[in-house]
Amino acid sequence: MKIGILGGGQLARMLALAGYPLGLQFVVLDPSADACAAQVASLIQADYDDENALKQLADEVDLVTFEFENVPAASLAFLKDNCPVYPPPAALQIAQDRLQEKNMFCKLNIPVPEFRDVQSKHDLQQAVAEIGLPAVLKTRSMGYDGKGQIVLKSSEDIEPAWQTLGGQLLILEAMVAFDREVSIIGARNRQGDTVFYPLSENLHHQGILHCARCLGSDDLQVLAEGYIKSIFSEMDYVGVLALELFVVNGQLLANEIAPRVHNSGHWTIEGAQISQFENHLRAVIDWPLGNTDPVEFAAMVNFIGAMPEARDIIQLTDVHLHHYHKAPRPGRKIGHATVRKRSSEDLAEAVDTLLRIAPVVKD
Amino acid sequence: MKIGILGGGQLARMLALAGYPLGLQFVVLDPSADACAAQVASLIQADYDDENALKQLADEVDLVTFEFENVPAASLAFLKDNCPVYPPPAALQIAQDRLQEKNMFCKLNIPVPEFRDVQSKHDLQQAVAEIGLPAVLKTRSMGYDGKGQIVLKSSEDIEPAWQTLGGQLLILEAMVAFDREVSIIGARNRQGDTVFYPLSENLHHQGILHCARCLGSDDLQVLAEGYIKSIFSEMDYVGVLALELFVVNGQLLANEIAPRVHNSGHWTIEGAQISQFENHLRAVIDWPLGNTDPVEFAAMVNFIGAMPEARDIIQLTDVHLHHYHKAPRPGRKIGHATVRKRSSEDLAEAVDTLLRIAPVVKD
Repeated sequence: MKIGILGGGQLARMLALAGYPLGLQFVVLDPSADACAAQVASLIQADYDDENALKQLADEVDLVTFEFENVPAASLAFLKDNCPVYPPPAALQIAQDRLQEKNMFCKLNIPVPEFRDVQSKHDLQQAVAEIGLPAVLKTRSMGYDGKGQIVLKSSEDIEPAWQTLGGQLLILEAMVAFDREVSIIGARNRQGDTVFYPLSENLHHQGILHCARCLGSDDLQVLAEGYIKSIFSEMDYVGVLALELFVVNGQLLANEIAPRVHNSGHWTIEGAQISQFENHLRAVIDWPLGNTDPVEFAAMVNFIGAMPEARDIIQLTDVHLHHYHKAPRPGRKIGHATVRKRSSEDLAEAVDTLLRIAPVVKD
Repeated sequence: MKIGILGGGQLARMLALAGYPLGLQFVVLDPSADACAAQVASLIQADYDDENALKQLADEVDLVTFEFENVPAASLAFLKDNCPVYPPPAALQIAQDRLQEKNMFCKLNIPVPEFRDVQSKHDLQQAVAEIGLPAVLKTRSMGYDGKGQIVLKSSEDIEPAWQTLGGQLLILEAMVAFDREVSIIGARNRQGDTVFYPLSENLHHQGILHCARCLGSDDLQVLAEGYIKSIFSEMDYVGVLALELFVVNGQLLANEIAPRVHNSGHWTIEGAQISQFENHLRAVIDWPLGNTDPVEFAAMVNFIGAMPEARDIIQLTDVHLHHYHKAPRPGRKIGHATVRKRSSEDLAEAVDTLLRIAPVVKD
């Protein structure tokens, strides 16, 4: 069976590496000639709206999935007319728009930070008056890794923020004084079977995920599973989906969804019985889903903007290197390490060591 | 860093899949256009004695290693003049010849079944007289999976065996009534650091490995490690090496070595902290070697001649499919499954299930 993937970055690379042992083959479509997944898969180098290329992809493969969700709606519709596409394009379209996403959370009674649609400077001023400060002004689309968002701390910040982002579709969100950030990752296959990984606790460094740790058992697990289950049903979802949440006073507030394998689940490669990558493939192919139980205690640390020396990482006991073979650029995720230990104390110590070694080079 | 591999079968495929996360790239040389490693690596399609192709390989990569050890001595010498080669070609040459191999075991005081060099029918008759029957007449070179060997049960078997194998370099070995077959796999890097996996207990089906189970702790571990250590030193070995042994009345008799990653170590992919494939790459690159401790209780079952349905395998909890994407042919190893369980009882039950499901199609 041959799987097509829109996007040829590290997520596609790790999907392919998880899929070869299952007897699968891969074709990725990416605008870049040096897409890192092309080292382990066939590459169709083309823009995401190139219908000839999308047709070629659809003709070559049995089904198409995504590692990059900001594909134009017209391309999604075109693809779906030519071959099976999972997750459903409608789910991608909701995830592409923070306002639609927040509206869906509200419809499903999933608590969210306060938010307002911002279409004008007047809207922005009124939203600030209603929500209060600090708040975050975000583009509704195309933001990632903290890009496309500005924190407003005082009313003096409104005008310059509007100068920077005004003219795009925007949303203002209350800035939440959260206790911690967590995510839940689940998979749903075409039969509607579902599995869920344990919550991951996530640490960001200036808007970019830096470290994610599997929370073997957490009081909030059941609540988080309930939320992601209702999203699965609402979207008739197929594949892996991540739901990012803020923990505030023991309650969960939904931040956003990612309709794909997710950075906060990279620890599952060695840290879960079956990884998020294998489970995504199982889900879209409609195979039985795999056991999401953790194996020992696991975490992962991202390498941002620069790679450490391979030998400095692998000499650490029970640390697994994941080098994406991407050109280093400030702020770019170019690798990660998973660490798996027999106790949470050993894990904490190993994560500290990794965080000390792992360089972070930002813009 | 780019690694060249002589041979493009499943061992090269699994080396490459283990190496991409380390940031490595791979070129395989194989005579076959449909070598299964070529799905995940560049392929130079050429015979092993094609010096132009060997030169091209040496020029493209940083070092060369092997998944196929029956490479002509002249090719090994030529390669070594053009780039670093690990394991050392001298080790391959010994492993290519059962007589040299047995002589080395004797030199190192590693017990072996009785054996005799057989260069003529007279030699064979004399060897049978000295060793007794049953015994196994084997070609000194190029045998694998039970090929190139004939069991002699009575003196009437001598003449037909000679008719079949006479004219080749031969060895007669006493047939050992062993209690079990085990193997030990170790790795040695260029610094001389060594690591050893727990013994594996191996079950064969008509000469082909069918099932290998990690023996978490075994009384014979220390003895086996001592033997493989002395082989490492004798050969100034670099890479992963497997030593196959018979257990007879609580003693170990050496059968043969494989100077490469080995089928009886496939359980290490999920069943050890760091797999034999990653440790082979670490050893030849001269990186620090990885932890060989088992993760839970692990075993693997080969798929011989035919693949089961993927969904029938992956629906079994904690079973990992490894599909080599090779054309099925009788007697050909075309995949395996690893199973990892929290207790040895659960493991035994899962292995039984796999053995029931796994078809064996032999010549």
